[in-house]
This record gives sequence, structure tokens and C-alpha cells, in this order.
Amino acid sequence: MSAPLSAQDAPAEPPTPASIAAAARAEEWVAIDPADLLVMDLAPDAKGEPRQLIVQLMPPPFSQGWVGNIRALAKAHWWDGTSVYRVVDNWVAQWGDGEDDKADAKPLPEGLREVPESEYTVPMTCKVYLFEGKVIEDKCDPEFNQLDGVDPYVVKGQVGFSAGWPVAFELQSGGNRVWPTHCYGSVGVARNLSPDTGTGAELYVVIGHAPRQLDRNIAVVGRVIEGIEHLSTLPRGKGEAGVYDDPKLRVPIVSVRLGDKLPEAKRPRFEYLASDSGSFAEYVRVRANRNDAFYRVPAGGIDVCNVQVPIRRVK
Amino acid sequence: MSAPLSAQDAPAEPPTPASIAAAARAEEWVAIDPADLLVMDLAPDAKGEPRQLIVQLMPPPFSQGWVGNIRALAKAHWWDGTSVYRVVDNWVAQWGDGEDDKADAKPLPEGLREVPESEYTVPMTCKVYLFEGKVIEDKCDPEFNQLDGVDPYVVKGQVGFSAGWPVAFELQSGGNRVWPTHCYGSVGVARNLSPDTGTGAELYVVIGHAPRQLDRNIAVVGRVIEGIEHLSTLPRGKGEAGVYDDPKLRVPIVSVRLGDKLPEAKRPRFEYLASDSGSFAEYVRVRANRNDAFYRVPAGGIDVCNVQVPIRRVK
Repeated sequence: MSAPLSAQDAPAEPPTPASIAAAARAEEWVAIDPADLLVMDLAPDAKGEPRQLIVQLMPPPFSQGWVGNIRALAKAHWWDGTSVYRVVDNWVAQWGDGEDDKADAKPLPEGLREVPESEYTVPMTCKVYLFEGKVIEDKCDPEFNQLDGVDPYVVKGQVGFSAGWPVAFELQSGGNRVWPTHCYGSVGVARNLSPDTGTGAELYVVIGHAPRQLDRNIAVVGRVIEGIEHLSTLPRGKGEAGVYDDPKLRVPIVSVRLGDKLPEAKRPRFEYLASDSGSFAEYVRVRANRNDAFYRVPAGGIDVCNVQVPIRRVK
Repeated sequence: MSAPLSAQDAPAEPPTPASIAAAARAEEWVAIDPADLLVMDLAPDAKGEPRQLIVQLMPPPFSQGWVGNIRALAKAHWWDGTSVYRVVDNWVAQWGDGEDDKADAKPLPEGLREVPESEYTVPMTCKVYLFEGKVIEDKCDPEFNQLDGVDPYVVKGQVGFSAGWPVAFELQSGGNRVWPTHCYGSVGVARNLSPDTGTGAELYVVIGHAPRQLDRNIAVVGRVIEGIEHLSTLPRGKGEAGVYDDPKLRVPIVSVRLGDKLPEAKRPRFEYLASDSGSFAEYVRVRANRNDAFYRVPAGGIDVCNVQVPIRRVK
């Protein structure tokens, strides 16, 4: 039997992603304005339990045409009385009126924008300079913190993070472009065939492996930051394209409100770990190179959708 | 108004992944031996509907120590009366006895192997030659069909497919190694801390974004090829590590059988599109470069877990 270690002899536990986020300094966390959150209440479940989801809307400069429409739809209480009507395993759960091709579609509020496909991506400018013979890109607008390593979906560019969101950018002769990526939990705008881009009334959330083929083909307008299990556990639809063939399976949406429209005590308070912070860089490094007790071989890399930016509720 | 097109003037629709799989020649599909399938019957759901899953076991040379144990466990009817006891959103659903740390654990059948960590990967030999000054690897053992493009998890190697399974391989000075990757639907062997590798009695299925950091850290022993929704829609556990804190939430497993032990009429018959076939290569190319009506920007690449090898039931 080996001699017991005293506490001071015990080797320090290797850090985990969770321990790094927990140890981040207060000023590395960024408050999310309740005005940038959607609070979505579904009808209670079969046991009478409440089902609430929180969606964080995409910040400028990304997808702002659709985000503006979504704000208008929430202010008009447009989603109240609509439903979750389509759920496909390893793909999406979708909600809204679900009748957008039909004569009995629910009328939309006045003033929604028809957003052009060109707004799936936005320009990015970076201060570029040479350092020891290498091209260094720095101080990008919008903010861009590159993820080390390669990405199979970006041939002439890079993936990284912008203000806490996973994004991809491409070097283009007409000017570099950047766009939000489709990851687990991403909220996108359902649409008909191109050049239609959708209004934002019909939305979906990704409930499976990141469908990155949708990047630049559909507007990503947000992400579910709490309560996604209320959508990911719903029965899968058996109708065409996973639409519920039995209307009784549709899950009623009681209300969708912008967070700042709720009474003070009910406003959702969240914060994210700044993606330009030292703790975030360390969080990514450790997620890509796990060496805590459970792991024996660090991967040595990670994909942008597997990073999972830390977001937490503020007490 | 433009003149209507007659049918013969209509341009051919661009191919989709589904249209390519549907058009593959019969000899490009490979039958899956029912002896390599697990048929898992859960207790009926709240509406009395049956819940059956089919798991395809990993073929040689991958993970065969654990696969052998799993065959023995199924033959001993060991899982009958156990349960699905842990479900974590965007992570896994796990089943088995769920008491493996405790004195009242269900006894395991005799003769299970203790498989060493070295078997998480297996050797791969490739015939290497030079062609126009480039190193070409060909005729690998096991079979290996490289996916074009890069992978963030493999620094000195490549990802691809081996007999219809997504795998990664690494060039190593001591001999190249290859291993199965963790994708949506992958079945792995739950374990305690290293050097424990698990017996195969406690299994999980991935129900979220590919957790590739588990590659080479846990044995991948199969994949759910039908009925995954019976696990992915289960309520998420609220106990420690997502274990159901209320034992009543555990989902009873009625039986798990190898497919060839079922009566002839009930044996599951499936086939997969050979990953060394021309149609599979075209399927991958089109999945990475969608240009059918819904898409406007082809991604130009794809990750190995997003390819989704075509598997279908045989009538």
C-alpha cells in the first residue's frame, strides 16, 4: 500500500473547460441585453410542467434584416397561438404558422423587410500587416477571433468567433465576407426556394449534427441558450419533410416576447464569456486538448461548432 | 409572361444525395449480416406504441474485443430487464444496468474480455507509391477511402470511410493507426476512468453534435441505423451527469437480441452503400457541393460525420 498523499502533495487537477469558465474573471463575461432575448412559452407538457425557451438574437452586423423582422413579429405577438409543427431527427424543430403556402396563412404584421440573399454574409475588414514574413490579420471589423486549425467547409478562409458567436470568413477578391455558422442550437429562418429568404416568421432550431451546408444558404438569426430540450425531445414528425401529419401533435406556442417587455422580475439575465478574452482562448485550447482524468489522448483540434461558447444565467 | 417549357425542354434537375443513392446500382449496395445487428426492444411508449431500435455492430478489425463482449451479453440476454438510465441533451443516451459502481450491480456473464486501451485504434497498412512526384496511398488494409478536404481533429492524417464507416487515420512513426469516429448515432462503450475501457455492458448513443474529442478515448462499437428517435426524444436526466434522478423515468429494456437469433421472418435486413463504390464517391461530392434548387452556395467541403453513409432496409 502506498503512503497517502497529504492535500498539499496532491498534484493539481488538470483544467477542464468547465473549470476554466468557472475561474474566468467577472470582467471577461459580457451581459446579454434582455432586449436581445426572445422568451418563448410553449403549452405545458403532458404532466403539466411549464416549457420555456430562451433564444438569443444575433447581434449586428449579422442577419439584421431578419432580426428586425423577428423583433416586429414578437412586438405584434404574432407567434402567440402558432405552433411547433415540424421535427426531424438529427436536423431541426420548426415553428410558426406552418401555413405559409396556403390561403389560410396567418397575416403578417405590416412593415416587414424582404431581405436579399446578399445579407446572408456581411463584409469584414481586417488590419493586415506583416510580422516576421507572415501575414497577420488583426483588429477585424466585426471582431474576429480565429480558431486555430482547419475547417472542411472553408476553403479560402478561416473559422472563429465574433462577439461570442461561431462564424466563418472567406477571403474574396471583391472584399472579405463573414457569416454565422449553423451549429447545434442555432436558430435559422425557414424559407421557400431561392431567391426567397424567408421573413423570420417561420423559424427552426438545429437539433443534430451541425448542418454547415446551410451556411450562406439560410439566415442564422440566433441560438437557443436555455430550454432546447423542450424542442429536441419532441416526437419526430411522420408527414412530408417531418411535418406533423396529425395536427393534434402540433405543440401550441402560448407566447413569444422580447425579454425587455417582461416585468422586471421576469426579465431573463444571461452573460457569455467574451470570445476575445484570455479565458475564452484557454477554454478553447483545453476543449481541443482534453487531458483531465477521463481522457487519455487529446484530440489536438476542434471544430467551431463543438467549442460551445460558455453562456450562463445571472443570479 | 414567359413561354411555358415543355417537358423535353426542361433542364435536368441537379442531383441530390438522395437521388444518387436511389440511382446506385444494386451491386454497389452491401448486405448487412443479421448476425451483425442488435435488435433492441424498449417497453412501449406512453401511448402503447412499440419502440424498437436496430444497432449495427462495428465490423473487423475495429473494436472487436468489445464487440465480442456485446455478442456474449446479447446471447446471455443480459440486457433484458435493464434500462435506459441517462440522457443528456446534445450528448448521449445511455443504457445498461446503471449500477456498475455498486454492490447490487447485475452480475456479468462469464468470459468477457478486459480489452486494453491499445485496441481503441488498429494498425493500417497502405501500399504507398509515387505518382508524378506525389505520394499516393492506395489499397489500404483495412479498406480506406479518403474524404477530400481537411479535418480539424486529425493533424497528421486523414479522415475517410472503411467498409461504410467513418474513420480517421494517423501517420505514426511506429506504424499508422486507424479508428472509428464518434458521429451522431455512434454507439460507444461507457467506462470509468482510464485504464478502464468498459466491458460493453453499459452503452451509449450520440444524440448531438459529433463529440470527436472522444475518439481514441472510448471504444466505438456500432451505430443506430433505425429507431434512434426512441432514444433522442427521451426526457433529459436531471440527476448527476444526466442520470435520471427519479428511477421511474428509466425506460425498461425488454430484450436485446442478435438479429440472427430472431425467427426468419423477423430478422432485420439492411444494406449500405459501399464506400469504395462510384456512387458513394458521387454521393459525397454532391453532399459537399449541393446545387439543387434549395441551395445557392455550395459549401465546397464536408466533415466526415456529416456525410451520413446511406443505409436502407431491404424489403
